[in-house]
Amino acid sequence: MTLNPADASFTQALEAQLPEGTLKAPEPRYLEEPRGRAKGEAGVIALPRSADEVSAIVRACNAAKVPVIPYGGGTGLVGGQLSDDLPAPVVISLERMNSVRSVNASSNVIEVDAGCILANIHEASEAVDRLFPLSLAAKGTAQIGGNLATNAGGLNVLRYGNARDLCLGLEAVLPNGDIWHGLSPLRKDNTGYDLRNLLIGSEGTLGIITGASLKLFPRPVSHETALLVVPSPEAALTLLAMARDIVGEAVSAFELMSKQALEFLAETMPEVRLPFADFPEWFVLVDFGLSRAQAGQAAMENLFETALDAELVSDGFIASSEQQREDFWTLRESIPDANRMIGSISSHDVSLPLDRLPAFITEGQKLIAGFDGLRLNCFGHLGDGNLHFNAFPPKARNKKEFSHLQGEVKSAVHDMVAQFGGSFSAEHGVGRLKTDDLLKYGDATKIAALKAIKAALDPNGIMNPGVILKT
Amino acid sequence: MTLNPADASFTQALEAQLPEGTLKAPEPRYLEEPRGRAKGEAGVIALPRSADEVSAIVRACNAAKVPVIPYGGGTGLVGGQLSDDLPAPVVISLERMNSVRSVNASSNVIEVDAGCILANIHEASEAVDRLFPLSLAAKGTAQIGGNLATNAGGLNVLRYGNARDLCLGLEAVLPNGDIWHGLSPLRKDNTGYDLRNLLIGSEGTLGIITGASLKLFPRPVSHETALLVVPSPEAALTLLAMARDIVGEAVSAFELMSKQALEFLAETMPEVRLPFADFPEWFVLVDFGLSRAQAGQAAMENLFETALDAELVSDGFIASSEQQREDFWTLRESIPDANRMIGSISSHDVSLPLDRLPAFITEGQKLIAGFDGLRLNCFGHLGDGNLHFNAFPPKARNKKEFSHLQGEVKSAVHDMVAQFGGSFSAEHGVGRLKTDDLLKYGDATKIAALKAIKAALDPNGIMNPGVILKT
Repeated sequence: MTLNPADASFTQALEAQLPEGTLKAPEPRYLEEPRGRAKGEAGVIALPRSADEVSAIVRACNAAKVPVIPYGGGTGLVGGQLSDDLPAPVVISLERMNSVRSVNASSNVIEVDAGCILANIHEASEAVDRLFPLSLAAKGTAQIGGNLATNAGGLNVLRYGNARDLCLGLEAVLPNGDIWHGLSPLRKDNTGYDLRNLLIGSEGTLGIITGASLKLFPRPVSHETALLVVPSPEAALTLLAMARDIVGEAVSAFELMSKQALEFLAETMPEVRLPFADFPEWFVLVDFGLSRAQAGQAAMENLFETALDAELVSDGFIASSEQQREDFWTLRESIPDANRMIGSISSHDVSLPLDRLPAFITEGQKLIAGFDGLRLNCFGHLGDGNLHFNAFPPKARNKKEFSHLQGEVKSAVHDMVAQFGGSFSAEHGVGRLKTDDLLKYGDATKIAALKAIKAALDPNGIMNPGVILKT
Repeated sequence: MTLNPADASFTQALEAQLPEGTLKAPEPRYLEEPRGRAKGEAGVIALPRSADEVSAIVRACNAAKVPVIPYGGGTGLVGGQLSDDLPAPVVISLERMNSVRSVNASSNVIEVDAGCILANIHEASEAVDRLFPLSLAAKGTAQIGGNLATNAGGLNVLRYGNARDLCLGLEAVLPNGDIWHGLSPLRKDNTGYDLRNLLIGSEGTLGIITGASLKLFPRPVSHETALLVVPSPEAALTLLAMARDIVGEAVSAFELMSKQALEFLAETMPEVRLPFADFPEWFVLVDFGLSRAQAGQAAMENLFETALDAELVSDGFIASSEQQREDFWTLRESIPDANRMIGSISSHDVSLPLDRLPAFITEGQKLIAGFDGLRLNCFGHLGDGNLHFNAFPPKARNKKEFSHLQGEVKSAVHDMVAQFGGSFSAEHGVGRLKTDDLLKYGDATKIAALKAIKAALDPNGIMNPGVILKT
C-alpha cells in the first residue's frame, strides 16, 4: 500500500471542508510519549468537535490515501499514538470532544465523548452516587477513547473487568469515513458480530472511537483495606481464594508487591509512609469494597485471622482510618514513580496462567539476576495474573552501563513468558513497540485472520499504519 | 457465490480422509428444531472426534465450496442450525467432542470440548466446589459450543454476564480449515484484535468453535430467595437498585413476572405451586447468592422491610426452606412450558434501555390487546432489560384462528422496540429467522462492516450460509 503525505495541497483542501480552526500545525506535545521511547511526526493536527467532523477528515484521508493517527491523552506506553516513519500523517486529537453527554443513575449508564478525560468520568459518576471503575495512574490525562482503543486494565480489573467489560456501546468512524451509531445502552443485544469488541483493543487501526456508553456500578458503602505479609506469591494466591470465599466479588483489588519495591521507595521517595519495620519479601494490598450487608462484619479481620491460622499470612496492617487507607494505596501507586527514578533497563507487562504464576516468578528472578546481577521489581495485579516485571541495574550502579542488555533481557523474559503460556502484553497493547513480539509469539492462524479483517475494513491501510500488524 | 452439494462423490472422497464412522447419513434429529418453526436438509452428517478432524472436514468443504452447518445441541430458537434451501450441506455435529479437558479450582478455569453439554460443565465445576454460572432451560441438551456461538444469556446474566463474559479462550476451526489455538486461560491479554469475541455470537458463520476455556466462580455459601409483589415494573427497577445497594453483586437473579403467567400456569400446569391467594398484577423473583460475610445477615428480610416502607413492595414470600426456594424457581422456569401449552401467536425476545422499559411495557400491552384482544405474557430478566414478550389468543380461543396475525404482530412489536431504542434479539441471536429484522433495524454502517468481515474470513461463503447476513 502506498500512502501519501498530508502535504500543503491536501491540508488546504481539507481545511476548506471544516470549520475554521479545526486544523493546526504540529506541536511537540502530540509527538512525544511519557518515557521518551518513541518519536512522532505529523503533517497536520486535526481537532474535530464532532463525529461528523471526524468522519469528514477520515473520508478525505481515505480518498487521498493519507495516513491517520488517532490521538487521545497521549499516555500509551507502546507507541500506538506516534510514528516517525510514515508519510506525514494527519493526527486526529479528540481533545475537543470531551463532554459527558448524559448520566443515568437508575439505568447505570453514562454516555461520553471519546475525548473525555477518565478522571472527569469518575467525577460525573460520583455526582450521581455511582462508580465508574476503570482506574489507572494516568487517569488525570488519559481519555476514555484511548482507554477503549487499547482495552486498558488498571487497578479494578479483578472485580469489574478490563475496559471492554465496562463498555455497552460505541460510536465510531470507520476507515471509509462512515459513522457507526452503536451507542446502545443495552445489556443484551445479539444482533450480528461483535463490532464493539472488535474496535475495542484494535488500537486505532480499524476506526476512531468518537463516543461510548459505559456501565456504572453502585458505590461500595465502605472499604476495608490491608497490607498483609505473605510467605510467597503462591500463598498470596491461596489468600485471594480465601478472601473471595469471605466477601465474594467485593475483593476490589489484590496487589502483590515485594521487598524491592519498598527499597526503591525508601531510596527515592522518603515521603511515602512505609509501615513495615523490617521489609518483608512479599506482601499484598487487599481492598474490600463492601455492600451494606457486608459492612460492619469485620470481614478483613476475619480474613487476617483465618489466614494467620492457615499460615498464609505472617503479619499485616488493617487500615484503621481513611488516612491510613490512603497511605496504603499511595505506597502501591508510587511504585511506578520510584521505578522511573531508579531507571529500568527493561520493563515488561506480562500475564500468566494463575497456576503457573508462582513458578514463573521464581524462574524469572533467577533469569534477571543472571544478567550481571540486575535487580527485579516484580509487582502487580495478582488476581488477574498480571505482573509488571521490570529489570533494574544493581545497587548504586547506573542505568546507562547496562542499557546494552535491554534487547536481550526483554527477549529472554518474553521467551520465558511464552514457555509458561503467558502473554507479552497484558494491558498495554501491542502498539508499534511490540509488533515483532506479536509476530514471534502470536498464533499464525489468528494473525492471518486479523490481517484479513484489517484489509477488509481498511483496504487503503490508512488507519494508524504500523500498529499491531505492522501493516 | 455458487455453492455445491455434498454429493456422493464429495462424500466418498471426504470419507477416505477420515476415520471410519465419522460420516453418516442424515437423520431427522439433525433436521428439526424445538418448536418446529424451521426445517433442515443435509447431504451428510459428520461426527468428528477432534479439532483436527473438524479441520479436515472444513478444509475439504472449502476446497469444494460445499456449505457447512455447525450443529451443537440443536436447541437454538432462530433456525441457525437448520437450512432447507442450500445445496445439500455437511452438518458437523460436535456431539462426540464432549469431554471436560481439565478443571482448575485454584485458577478458576475449566477447559472443555465444544460439544460438552452445559449441565455436565455445571457438574464438573461443582465437583471442585466452583460455579459455572451460565444456565438456561435447555441446559441438559445445549452444548457449550452452541452457547458460545450464539452468546447465550439465561438466568444469571445480571450477576455474571452473557456467555461471552464467561469465556477466556477458544480453539476454533476457521473457514479455510486452519485451527486457531486460542485456548488461553489468561484474564488479561492485549495482543491484537479480539478474535474470541468476534467468533462468539457469530452463530457459526465465521468458524466452528471446537474448545473453550471458561471462567469459574466461588459458589455462594447460601441463597436467599423471595417472590415480591410490586405495584409496577417501574417499582421493580427501583427495588433492584435497592437490592444491589444492600448486597452488591450478590443479586444473582431478578425476574419479572405478571398475573398472566400465573393464570397460564394455573390453567396448564396445576402441579406447579403458586403461593399467591390473589394473583398480583406484577411480581419479581429475587435471588441472592451470598458470600460468607453476607450470610446470616437476613439481607432479604432487610430488603423486604425497606421496600415495604418505601411502598415498592406490597406483599411477598421469603423462602424459608430449600424446598420453597425450589418451588419459587419452578414457578419461574415453568412459564415457557405453560406458554407452549397455551400456544403463542408470536414470541419476542427483546431488550430495552432500562429507563424506557416500564413505558415500553405499558405501550406494548396496549399494542398486543389492539390485535383482536390477544393476551400478552411479558416476563423475563428485568435487570438485563431483557423481556420475553409473547402474544397469545384470547381466553378459550384457538391459536389457529389468529395465526394469520403472526407477521403483523411481530412486525408491530419489533417496530415499537426499535422506537424505544431496543433490540429485536436480546439473547437468541439472528439465525435464519431474524435476518430480515437485522436488515430492517440494523445500523447500515455496521452491516456493511460485518459483510466485509464475513467476506474476508470466509471468501467462499461456506460457513453456515444464510445466517445473520443472509449471505
